[in-house]
Amino acid sequence: MSKSMIFSLNSEPLVASLSKQLDCPIGAYNSRDFPDGESYLRIQSKVKNCHCIVVADLSHPNEKYLPLIFLLDTLKDLGAKSVGLVAPYLSYMRQDKRFIDGEAITSKVFAQSLSNHIDYLVTVDPHLHRYHSLDEIYSVPNVVVQGAPLLANWLKGQPNLFLVGPDSESEQWISSIAKVSGHAYVIGQKNRQGDRDVEVRLPDLGAHEGQTAVIIDDVISSGHTILSCIEALKKYNVEEIKCAAVHGIFADGVDVRLIAAGLSELITTNSITHPSNAVDIAPILAEPILSCLAKLEGKP
Amino acid sequence: MSKSMIFSLNSEPLVASLSKQLDCPIGAYNSRDFPDGESYLRIQSKVKNCHCIVVADLSHPNEKYLPLIFLLDTLKDLGAKSVGLVAPYLSYMRQDKRFIDGEAITSKVFAQSLSNHIDYLVTVDPHLHRYHSLDEIYSVPNVVVQGAPLLANWLKGQPNLFLVGPDSESEQWISSIAKVSGHAYVIGQKNRQGDRDVEVRLPDLGAHEGQTAVIIDDVISSGHTILSCIEALKKYNVEEIKCAAVHGIFADGVDVRLIAAGLSELITTNSITHPSNAVDIAPILAEPILSCLAKLEGKP
Repeated sequence: MSKSMIFSLNSEPLVASLSKQLDCPIGAYNSRDFPDGESYLRIQSKVKNCHCIVVADLSHPNEKYLPLIFLLDTLKDLGAKSVGLVAPYLSYMRQDKRFIDGEAITSKVFAQSLSNHIDYLVTVDPHLHRYHSLDEIYSVPNVVVQGAPLLANWLKGQPNLFLVGPDSESEQWISSIAKVSGHAYVIGQKNRQGDRDVEVRLPDLGAHEGQTAVIIDDVISSGHTILSCIEALKKYNVEEIKCAAVHGIFADGVDVRLIAAGLSELITTNSITHPSNAVDIAPILAEPILSCLAKLEGKP
Repeated sequence: MSKSMIFSLNSEPLVASLSKQLDCPIGAYNSRDFPDGESYLRIQSKVKNCHCIVVADLSHPNEKYLPLIFLLDTLKDLGAKSVGLVAPYLSYMRQDKRFIDGEAITSKVFAQSLSNHIDYLVTVDPHLHRYHSLDEIYSVPNVVVQGAPLLANWLKGQPNLFLVGPDSESEQWISSIAKVSGHAYVIGQKNRQGDRDVEVRLPDLGAHEGQTAVIIDDVISSGHTILSCIEALKKYNVEEIKCAAVHGIFADGVDVRLIAAGLSELITTNSITHPSNAVDIAPILAEPILSCLAKLEGKP
């Protein structure tokens, strides 16, 4: 196979790990913003005939989008054999329908635009609600990786705890994790009034008195769901309250508020670089990336 | 001709004026950002079979790009007959060449990407340095409008003043303005050491003692060229120092520093909305927009 090179867009720890897993070098570039807010980019590595893998943190996507397509298109322009995007957190997946007349279906516009700049996409636990597959909006080959096994492995062997899913949407996901980790779980009921106004109600937790509660979620965004879940758990006699998630966006600096609200531990994967990163996502990404590259080279 | 509707992206004063010039209604939409930094958009006006004209301020373009393409693509998705972009200030025109190996030619990537979302482009005084025409990078019909006549009209009839062009690049432009306004002009020599490190030297100004100096530029970006020009002018016995530009970006809040440095008046067009706006750019945009629409309808 042609040689590969891996590039980071705000994802240095993950790229360092993936570089070892894939045994491929990290590409170098420098970038900066001019005083007028436009971006400059220069790729320093030689990428001609290379399979270039760009690993990007797409949280807070608006300000990152142009720098991302500058990187993707310039790699191609400099002769890269392929340019793939590994976006562990895939942004703009929420608005998947025109709920009210005139709404932008941003997931579709974003996907169609991004597809123009990449040869394939690898992502982890995208918010597939009404879409059954990314193929409905992305026109490039893509692989969706499950993050649940990583959280299950982290939980495995930790005694005297139970899992808490904040809402019914999470039930299938939590139950699959609980099955592997061997813990009991409960599911809350979420009532959302607005972006920042969420209430979570829990079932009776009498059976879990004295145990540690671990709230499990795929994405922590505004964090209000988790905050409400912590408040609900504090009404019971639980030993400790922890929280584990795949993607930690922590909008409005809510990570600090989560700890202040009573979490004894907050862990995330390095999908989005953050001090709470405790689980390396590279092991589940390496094989899907290699399979995309093999397909590009026409291998089975 | 089919009816038209005009939409504003951070360009309300200009759109209010253009709406009158073109005798077409202003389209309504609401937009907001979710806590995670993603954008929501809903177009409230009925746009089916309408020619939609989107007027956008593209200064500080990175954070505006995705909201812009959401607006453009959603208008099309809702049945707009055409979607044109009026971007009086056209961003990403500076990096028009690979000066050093590996550099991104951002003007090209930006133009190619934007061309996917629009039917035509109207802009004012884009930075055409090495490109002879926008057609070299934009794949859609486009019209380049000259802003100089507006500044010349503003200057016309103002007595006892002379024009100052900060560098040799501006000579052709300043001379064409001076010819119409009937004023003398001088041209400085610019020496740029970095984004924020600029020195302007002026020729002898003995002939203009006691007159008002009006610095003229197409774009005020970091403002350091103008600041240096003001410092150079202060060494001479000029009555007042004023500054007039087509596009006022005023990076890093340099507008305040320009006034503090000794400008008695700072004026710009409403290309980019700013308190210094004193010249309405709508009159020179209306006809080019109408000609783009006529071409779309197959009229000569």
